[in-house]
This record gives sequence, structure tokens and C-alpha cells, in this order.
Amino acid sequence: MSTLRYDATTNDWVIFAPSRARRPGEYCVRDSRQSDPHPQSCPFCPGNERLTPPEIDAVRPGTERNAGDWRVRVVPNLFPALQIEENPESRTEANALFRYRGGCGAHEVVIESPRHNLALHEQPLEQVVLLLQMLQRRYNDLLRDPRFQAILIFKNHGERAGTTLRHPHCQLIATPVVPRLNRLKVTVAEEYYDRTGHGLYTRLLEQELAEQTRVLAVNQNYAAVLPYASHVPFETWILPLHQQATFGAVPGALLPDLAAILRLVLRALYRGLDDPDFNLMVDTAPRGDEGKPWFLWHIQILPRLAPRSGFELGSGMPINTVLPEEAAAFLREIVETEDWPA
Amino acid sequence: MSTLRYDATTNDWVIFAPSRARRPGEYCVRDSRQSDPHPQSCPFCPGNERLTPPEIDAVRPGTERNAGDWRVRVVPNLFPALQIEENPESRTEANALFRYRGGCGAHEVVIESPRHNLALHEQPLEQVVLLLQMLQRRYNDLLRDPRFQAILIFKNHGERAGTTLRHPHCQLIATPVVPRLNRLKVTVAEEYYDRTGHGLYTRLLEQELAEQTRVLAVNQNYAAVLPYASHVPFETWILPLHQQATFGAVPGALLPDLAAILRLVLRALYRGLDDPDFNLMVDTAPRGDEGKPWFLWHIQILPRLAPRSGFELGSGMPINTVLPEEAAAFLREIVETEDWPA
Repeated sequence: MSTLRYDATTNDWVIFAPSRARRPGEYCVRDSRQSDPHPQSCPFCPGNERLTPPEIDAVRPGTERNAGDWRVRVVPNLFPALQIEENPESRTEANALFRYRGGCGAHEVVIESPRHNLALHEQPLEQVVLLLQMLQRRYNDLLRDPRFQAILIFKNHGERAGTTLRHPHCQLIATPVVPRLNRLKVTVAEEYYDRTGHGLYTRLLEQELAEQTRVLAVNQNYAAVLPYASHVPFETWILPLHQQATFGAVPGALLPDLAAILRLVLRALYRGLDDPDFNLMVDTAPRGDEGKPWFLWHIQILPRLAPRSGFELGSGMPINTVLPEEAAAFLREIVETEDWPA
Repeated sequence: MSTLRYDATTNDWVIFAPSRARRPGEYCVRDSRQSDPHPQSCPFCPGNERLTPPEIDAVRPGTERNAGDWRVRVVPNLFPALQIEENPESRTEANALFRYRGGCGAHEVVIESPRHNLALHEQPLEQVVLLLQMLQRRYNDLLRDPRFQAILIFKNHGERAGTTLRHPHCQLIATPVVPRLNRLKVTVAEEYYDRTGHGLYTRLLEQELAEQTRVLAVNQNYAAVLPYASHVPFETWILPLHQQATFGAVPGALLPDLAAILRLVLRALYRGLDDPDFNLMVDTAPRGDEGKPWFLWHIQILPRLAPRSGFELGSGMPINTVLPEEAAAFLREIVETEDWPA
């Protein structure tokens, strides 16, 4: 059903997934896909497992698949952007300008906990660790399929960030090509490494830690930073303090530290910006670059405080109205003055 | 006040314009900048000329500047993303990773007509022509400043598209660097020309006109097309039928045809999608490429029907849920069945 089309003007691949859409004529009904069903009809709530496709994986005390006793649950996306059944080689180039290929890939939903209304930052630390373990397990399992070149882990929180179901969940999409932005970031980092002998992200992190003004928090293994050239207000990155190109290879012993700093960042944004809509993305090396010294995997959190304007869409040049050092100072004050339960 | 910061991870320049922002702590008040003032307090309504900075240009029967008898009026943006006073050479590279330069540029508002609630597609043809003439005049005038490398003309319609004032208006931003997306598109077109001897956009347009399925309308001098690899549902381009790299050089005699097809496209989107929010951008060759045969200037209209998700933000890979041939068929039916006044 899905197809990838090549944009000859920008060298982008565009995913066409018509099965995810309303019909053209139904577009005039705004936000009809926005829904906040009562837990009785929420497909992600315990007891409603029959409302999702059969589960792919789960953490639960029992052994019965699709039972209601799970703590984290993974299911296929009911409206997938890409499908595993498609053949990635079904490429047609009858016309060099209008190229396409089959939309081969995977699209999974990771339900973060059984609780319908408990946001990620409100979860106990051990639940966040369970979620990270599951995301890593699914990431590594999807990479076993040699057709997949890259896997993006992401989370949409709130209507402005593209959420259609409120029950907290993350998603994974595996793609048959390395997406443009991932390829660009790895290429830029590789060029920097060739030129200087240093890791670009490691150097950026060293300088941020030296200047301190944009650092939100640091623990034994991770730092949370609002980057120097943030594209949007309150953009926050979480980076490992030690070289690691891919999220798939993070040692399990480090996941509690990652969970702790992730929770701290999300709490600061929640309290400082009154539960802002946001997107969270895990930026990690694509297939073949896992062991390379020039990339450092990291989490990006982009609050969706204002829509992008025509200038930004047409130029690719972001306009950011808040300096990251001011945003970091504002968030640090919240972190320091709040008395948060563990 | 504005600064451009260099993003070493993507080679982007990011504009920082803190004077456009609320303070960090005020971000929790959502949409506080969304306003739809009554014409009495609308700074773009006739009689309220004192509420804007002094005008840059205007079309009016009289001769008194800043009087209320104008038909199209141009003023500086009160909250500019870039300011003309900044020195583009105030670059500091004490630290190779954290580079910045002064936010030199211009940011103008073109008020489309005196009518507060009359959208562009509802204007009489001659008013749309007046607007296009003024946009071209401002474009060419800004280019006389040798510090400006590119000028983006754009329009934000509706809250999801970033509008903060309802009174219909377009904007121009002149930048001291060629923005990433403009440079990319020109480079890709130049490479295609070097390889094939043909204009990329001309070829794309020829194929669209041959296949017909994604063509919305054609007149003597322009075609409206929903591109093969549209990034968003109902994305529509207006392209000239004859080679022209820059909007600044369009002969005045062709502007009525351009106004007519622009009005037709906007009406079809308005009726088909119930007044969708949209961004309109004029994509045109940057300084130095004005006479080149490989680029074709064009208008892009991007309806903002759904927010971009974390996958799209993290990968740069759009997910489009409506095939452009289906969207084009839907819009063509509206164009053919409606009885529109001239």
C-alpha cells in the first residue's frame, strides 16, 4: 500500500501512505482524527488488547500473549506508514524523474505503561527503564532484517506534535533507505572527523560543558543540553558522556541513568512550559555506521510551541525566538527549586 | 538584536530573533500572540496607519504618505526576524564550533488590501495584480542592497501556518546568506542541467503536462500542478510555462495571468478544504543565478492540514497521506463545477 517517491528537486524520498488518511473530501472536517477516548474504548488500555493487532512483544509477569497483565506492550501500528510485506526492490524507473519504490518497512507502537493518563515524566524510574529496555530490544530486533537501513524511535506528545491517541506511547519506524536528515548528520560528522580527528558531537558536548550556560543537567553517564544553534525554543538534547554511535549498543547498566535524566528533562519542560506539546526523537547511526567513532547517538526533544512559518518552510532556515542560554537558565531554576519525588 | 548561529551538525544557519518572543516564563500562556483584533485596533486597517512603522511603499490615488487612501501598503515588520542595521560582517569565530554573525537583513509586510476580512482568493483580479506588482517591486528594490543574498516572499494564512494577524498580508525577508533549502534546490537543478542539458523544472513540468493526472489548471503562461512527490497533502505549485529563473524578472504583462491562476488555486483549496490554513512561498533564484537556464521560479502552496510528527522532524522524510493525483482530481472537480464570479 505504501510507496516511496523520489523528489528530484531535493533528492528526498517521500513516503506515501494513503491508508493512514481520511479521503480527500473529508479533509474539511478538522481534527476528526484527534481523539481522547475514555479508557473503556482506548486500544492501549489493559483489557482492550483485542482492539490492537496481535502484540509483537511485551513485559509481563505471566506468559499468556495479549493478556491484560503487561507493563510495557508493543503492537504493530494499525495505520502503518510502511509495511513489512512490501518488497523494497519493486522499483520502477520507466521515467527517470518520476521514480518510486515499494514502501517496505516496519511501524510499531510501544505502549509506555498500562496507565491511560500518566505521562512519561510522572512514571516511576523503573517504569521508564522498562520502556528504554523495550525500545532498545525492538530497535535491535528490527535491525536483524537486512532490508532496513535505519530505525527511528520517536514520541509525539500532544495535538500539535501529531498525537492521535492520548494513552502515552512511543513509536519505531524502520526505513528501506537512510532518511535525508540522518544521512546528512552522519556525513557532516564524518567530514569533521576526517578533518580534525575528533568527534563532532563529543567536541560540541565538551564545549557546552565548559561554557555551562546551556547545560540543564549532568549525571554519571549523560548530559542534558540546550544546543548553541537550537532550531526551536527550548530544544533539548540528551547526549552520552562516553563514545557510542548507536542507541542499540548502550549497555543495559547505563539505562537507569538515561531514564533519570530523561525524566528530569521532561519534568522541567512540563512544569516550566505547562505541559507543552513536544516530539522526542532518538538520533542514532544507521546500519553500517554502528561502530564508527564520528557519531554520538543522542535524544532530541523539540517542544512545539509555535508553528513553522512560510519563511522557515520555504528557506529551511529556522527562526528561533528564545536564546538557548535563557531557556536553560529558566529550566535550571525549575529543576533547582522543585522538590520532586523519586 | 538578531543573530545568525551556525549549526555545525547540519551546516544550517539559524536566525535568533529574541525580540519576536514572549519571555521564556510566558510560554505557558498558549496562543497569547494569536489575535484577531476588531478593525478598530487592527494595525493593517485603513485609518490605523499610525499603528505601524512609517510605510516603505504604497499604491494610492493620493500623494500623502501614511494616509488612509492606499490600496496596497508596505511597512516594516514591527517584530523583525532580521534588521537592516546589522552589519553582516560582524562575524566572530573565536570558537570554530560556536560561530555566529549579525542578523543583517530586512523584514517587510505587504498588506494585500484595505479589507480586513477579505481573503486573497476573494479579491477582484485587479487587486491581486496590484499585490503581485508590489511584491515584485519590493523584491527588486531589496536586491539593490548588495548585502542581501536571497529574498523570500511568503504568506502565512491561519493559526496553524503561523499567522498572528488576521488582516491578509504577505511578507518579504531578505537574508545575508542563501538559505539551505534555496541553495539545495538551485544546486540540484544545476547538476541536472550539467548532466542532461535540460532544465529540471521544465522537464518536470513537461512530464506533468503530458500525464495530466496531477495538473489542476493551465492558462497561456502558467500551470498549477500538484507535484509527483508532494511533501504534504494538497501541496500545489504554480510554474511559468516559459523559462524564467527569478520572480523579479517576470514581465509585467504576464502578471494578470499569474494573478488569475493563483486566485483559481486558492479558491479551489478554500472550497475543497473549507478554508485550510496554508503557507505560500515564492521559490526564486538567489543573487547571481538570476539569468541561469537551470532554475525555474515557482510558487509553492502548502496546506497545513496535519502537524509534522516526530518521525518527519527526526528523519527529514515526509509522510504524505494523500496521493497528489487523487488530490488533483478532487480539486479539478471543484474548479469545473463551481460557477465563480470574475
